[in-house]
Amino acid sequence: VLRLKFVVAYDGRPFRGWQSQAGGGAVQDFLETAFARLCGDGVERVPVHGAGRTDAGVHARGQVAQADVPAEAFARLPRERWLTAVNAHLPPQIRVEKITRARAGWHARFSARGKWYRYRIWNAPTLQPLEFGRAWHLPGSLDFQLLRDMAATLAGTHDFAAFAANRGRGSKAPETTVRTLHRVAVRRGPGPLVTLDFVGDGFLYRQVRLMTGTLARVALGKMPPECIGELLDAKSSLKTSFAAPAEGLYLMRVLYRGGTG
Amino acid sequence: VLRLKFVVAYDGRPFRGWQSQAGGGAVQDFLETAFARLCGDGVERVPVHGAGRTDAGVHARGQVAQADVPAEAFARLPRERWLTAVNAHLPPQIRVEKITRARAGWHARFSARGKWYRYRIWNAPTLQPLEFGRAWHLPGSLDFQLLRDMAATLAGTHDFAAFAANRGRGSKAPETTVRTLHRVAVRRGPGPLVTLDFVGDGFLYRQVRLMTGTLARVALGKMPPECIGELLDAKSSLKTSFAAPAEGLYLMRVLYRGGTG
Repeated sequence: VLRLKFVVAYDGRPFRGWQSQAGGGAVQDFLETAFARLCGDGVERVPVHGAGRTDAGVHARGQVAQADVPAEAFARLPRERWLTAVNAHLPPQIRVEKITRARAGWHARFSARGKWYRYRIWNAPTLQPLEFGRAWHLPGSLDFQLLRDMAATLAGTHDFAAFAANRGRGSKAPETTVRTLHRVAVRRGPGPLVTLDFVGDGFLYRQVRLMTGTLARVALGKMPPECIGELLDAKSSLKTSFAAPAEGLYLMRVLYRGGTG
Repeated sequence: VLRLKFVVAYDGRPFRGWQSQAGGGAVQDFLETAFARLCGDGVERVPVHGAGRTDAGVHARGQVAQADVPAEAFARLPRERWLTAVNAHLPPQIRVEKITRARAGWHARFSARGKWYRYRIWNAPTLQPLEFGRAWHLPGSLDFQLLRDMAATLAGTHDFAAFAANRGRGSKAPETTVRTLHRVAVRRGPGPLVTLDFVGDGFLYRQVRLMTGTLARVALGKMPPECIGELLDAKSSLKTSFAAPAEGLYLMRVLYRGGTG
């Protein structure tokens, strides 16, 4: 078995999230089928695993994943054709942008050192139609300076338990809810766009959407700014439930020692 | 009857072009229905006319159109609610961004002094999935300087007959095929994006797509640069048939005396 490491981008809208679903339709399902087809007859499924799961509607600009292909079947395919060949078996809303052989012991998820997520907010009375499904439409009056100041307080190492959702039955809770946000950047423009970037060593389930949703409520004047600090101090006892919608979220990059995917 | 002037943006993909179709599904159909609903019972259809038609798949950032509404029916609706009310009756891929009363004698099409079109090319081996349907994917090696130089030769007043398609049966040919291109600008970036902007006093049917398609063939080395000049000199006898696909084209703005829509 040969382990391939690849970078994949996708539009989150047409798919049922990253993780394989009964009945198919998830990004992982399309990738497993595409790699199996490359390997030819007799290979029914190639296991594909991503650095992290994204919910339905969440986009990826740089998800990283592994595909474990039968070495003999894959040897027939010249290396310069890997990219074109796999993309030929994928819908245009999923594109593999880079494929290499993984180094021994490398694992898409366990070797990851961090992730960069972006959240896009469209702050205007009307959502530009080409932004539909790609940004969160927030028509209200947003206090941008407060949004930026409050976002900055999230940077650093904290127990983010209050900014975590349950992944659902059958999923284990993480052993620790302490995470480090290396970088939080908020900027405005072009036009009514507000972009929040979060780079961290790891993220709890829905953490970016819960942080963004809560920050937005504060910036809209619907919640006192002190709440952010209280939620960070509260640990698991207090929880926020203001998750920003999936369509504004982008997995930009997965970070590994020595660079990206 | 009260004439409203409005600016409308749309994603070209879900619709059957601008112009009303038997069976509906065109942008004009959705707008006529939405304005009729605003007017309430007894108003079956409100005629809507645009500054120009866009083909299926072509996007608009700033189409301008008129709606002739029954004055009494419309008087009930406070002016500050016009925008929200009409958008409430439209799919999210169509958004009216501004509505005013038209000045006496104003006509969306006949009063227009010019248009600004943009064409987007994605020049990389792989089309980023979030650009699918929004840019022309041109994977070949493009001579950017040649593209820019050749595009510049199109600026000015020319007989663009060689860059015009037939609109189909039942449509009259234009009386003259002489048009003035006030501005042609080509730029590269961000990333593999190449953007062509065309501002002119008027455009023949498919002119922007035919100009872009022909320029692209020259920049890809598939056609000698001299062809552009020959096509401009040739008038109606010679024709180019390399139309760039609809999905890369955007109607950015319609120009009127004293400003945009």
